[in-house]
Amino acid sequence: MEKSQTTEKRQNMEKSLKDRVYEQIRLAKQAARSLALLSRPEKDRALHAVGERLLADEAAILTANGRDVARAEADGQPAAYLDRLRLTPERLRDLVEGLRQLVELNDPVGEVTARWTRPNGLVIEQVRVPLGVIGMVYEARPNVTVDAAAIALKTGNAIVLRGSRSARESNLALTHSIRAALADAGLPAEAVQYLPYAEHESVDLLCTANGLIDVVIPRGGASLISRVLRTSTVPVLETGVGNCHIYIDQSAEYAMAEAITLNAKTSRPAVCNAAETLLLHRGWPERHRRDLLARLLAAGIELRACEETRRLHPELADRLVPAAPEDWDAEYLGLILAVRTVDSLDDALDHIARHGTGHSEAIVTQDAARAERFLAAVDAAAVYHNASTRFTDGGEFGFGAEIGISTQKLHARGPMGLPALTSSKYVVRGTGQIR
Amino acid sequence: MEKSQTTEKRQNMEKSLKDRVYEQIRLAKQAARSLALLSRPEKDRALHAVGERLLADEAAILTANGRDVARAEADGQPAAYLDRLRLTPERLRDLVEGLRQLVELNDPVGEVTARWTRPNGLVIEQVRVPLGVIGMVYEARPNVTVDAAAIALKTGNAIVLRGSRSARESNLALTHSIRAALADAGLPAEAVQYLPYAEHESVDLLCTANGLIDVVIPRGGASLISRVLRTSTVPVLETGVGNCHIYIDQSAEYAMAEAITLNAKTSRPAVCNAAETLLLHRGWPERHRRDLLARLLAAGIELRACEETRRLHPELADRLVPAAPEDWDAEYLGLILAVRTVDSLDDALDHIARHGTGHSEAIVTQDAARAERFLAAVDAAAVYHNASTRFTDGGEFGFGAEIGISTQKLHARGPMGLPALTSSKYVVRGTGQIR
Repeated sequence: MEKSQTTEKRQNMEKSLKDRVYEQIRLAKQAARSLALLSRPEKDRALHAVGERLLADEAAILTANGRDVARAEADGQPAAYLDRLRLTPERLRDLVEGLRQLVELNDPVGEVTARWTRPNGLVIEQVRVPLGVIGMVYEARPNVTVDAAAIALKTGNAIVLRGSRSARESNLALTHSIRAALADAGLPAEAVQYLPYAEHESVDLLCTANGLIDVVIPRGGASLISRVLRTSTVPVLETGVGNCHIYIDQSAEYAMAEAITLNAKTSRPAVCNAAETLLLHRGWPERHRRDLLARLLAAGIELRACEETRRLHPELADRLVPAAPEDWDAEYLGLILAVRTVDSLDDALDHIARHGTGHSEAIVTQDAARAERFLAAVDAAAVYHNASTRFTDGGEFGFGAEIGISTQKLHARGPMGLPALTSSKYVVRGTGQIR
Repeated sequence: MEKSQTTEKRQNMEKSLKDRVYEQIRLAKQAARSLALLSRPEKDRALHAVGERLLADEAAILTANGRDVARAEADGQPAAYLDRLRLTPERLRDLVEGLRQLVELNDPVGEVTARWTRPNGLVIEQVRVPLGVIGMVYEARPNVTVDAAAIALKTGNAIVLRGSRSARESNLALTHSIRAALADAGLPAEAVQYLPYAEHESVDLLCTANGLIDVVIPRGGASLISRVLRTSTVPVLETGVGNCHIYIDQSAEYAMAEAITLNAKTSRPAVCNAAETLLLHRGWPERHRRDLLARLLAAGIELRACEETRRLHPELADRLVPAAPEDWDAEYLGLILAVRTVDSLDDALDHIARHGTGHSEAIVTQDAARAERFLAAVDAAAVYHNASTRFTDGGEFGFGAEIGISTQKLHARGPMGLPALTSSKYVVRGTGQIR
């Protein structure tokens, strides 16, 4: 009897979580209808109002954030984690500056991307429209809350946010300010929803709200992304892992090869466009290969090398860790680099086809024909000739705003700018045509 | 002991099905690498070879199909089912004619859709590339086997097909011919795989082969589509249900309203772009509304009407079935039409927002401003002013080939032509740039 009461109570609580989450999602969906019809000036005015309001609410936001940081500190989180969590007056001003840049960007909504007339006289237009309601599941950094809400607003979408528990108070304070600004600007505050629930079920509910949520975007570590992919019945925009390769071809220029490899590995090792594996063509002069290995070690990089690479440098062999099979698939996100000597361009292409994650892949070569073969044959979101993989980034591509870097092939691939948050519809004008 | 042996045996069989399915998927993935690099002439020659081979193999194909039809007949399947299953010399020739039309279509692969130079000198191109490996789950009609394989080939994609058990022999005979033609044309036959397994698990395996299958396209009834959506961790291109509305505005011309409504409901009631609900503005003259109802009844359509609509026509009231709440959400796919009288354009927009499935929605009106409001506010793949919803079709849109009609908002929406089977990649050419 007691047990069944507990079960019933739990079911009621679950039902209640579902009800609460769905209520927020439905409010967002309702708001999306009017958001889709807003003009660019209306949306830009609202973005401006959001920026003003965030600055006005600075004290409340920083106080809420301080509580999050204190709790994370007490939980023994490492310094890097605390740093990502922390908001400062400067960071808040940067966020507001980001909003100002967003205002300057072209509004993709309403753009007629194609227009044609059929023999029967029907005039067909393909028009960009908002996606509708975006679900966003993310970790740690509270600035994502503002970025995501602002980009959604600029593209006429409503958004349901679900950040990590550790940033809960910061996120609630930020969304409170955003919603207040929307209401002041005469827009529906319901367009921005924050799910404050610690339960993982709130993520699952968001990811299975077909017909209400049009796309879920997970941003965070591999386990977050794989959980969303596994449970989601709503379409997912996957921003995935990057096991990126730098392939040094036989004719590569030494200085360029060194600069690109160092940049791709060390400029920011924790990001997805950093290189994880270096492939060295056997035909690249031995002294170059030896020099490059020595230079990488000198830069503090741990090298995990294949047997042939280790034999190349007997005097450094004890500093060249033997690579295990799993090294070819690892995304280290730190100062570790796998190194393999390959027999040929084809060998490099095979290695990348087998181990790459389709993110960013680069060839360094002076041979234009071989470069073109690499660019054509490698199946990745971005392929580079004589440039660092680190350029796979919305800002570096000139998009002005970035939602993430898609590693899937549907809808959007690579750095996603504003158009990635739009869909299209066919508008057909007739004079009574029937079929 | 016995029991555990059975369990073990079953596990082995399951493992074996998984192994077999994955082996086929891996062969397709391997083939996709070379398919992606084919030129348009190479692909068109192969399509031509497929057509020739299907004609040469006519006897074997029709014999296999005859066995499928006989089995379905013995199973007591209805005539319409048998008709969809049946291949004839004429239908085979139509299929081959379809291949010839496909050869004429432009190849989207390789198209540079954008190109710009960054201040640092990087030249960025966005290039159309094949998706890679398509998984296709479909029901009954064996012509889909040829259409899907051919469209995949034209766009440089490999395809793994899983048709229904009832068409198994036909599908195997067709894919046998297609693969033989590919091999003769010097292309990898492995690019077209057919999963002949009756087990539903083979569908689940296909839908969860992340990293090997790039997209799953379900074509068939609602239960097939919902199963694929539920189990799939691979992105799905949803070709869903259509609860389409015809809204007759107060200023509609009678003859046009009648023609469009009749066409949308009766020209092919079983397809997704057929109308399921008629919304009548209260301000449309009463005699028009009465005449239209009488005309629809005379056409043999069962009308399920709201109370107000029923009161409109006392002499026909016994033939106007009272609509139940679920009628507003029904996709009848037959000669039944729900009818509701609405107070205003806003009332119609609210009804469509609540009950529409985002497929095709039409307004009939002589008032341009009200038409534009409808076209902007309705969130659907295709919105029509003064034309039948039946035009939502790749052929009617002039695409030449149709993969299906997407009702989702990501990647492709509405009728899908060849570009829907492509992705893009960024090709970045540098001179040593680092970040």
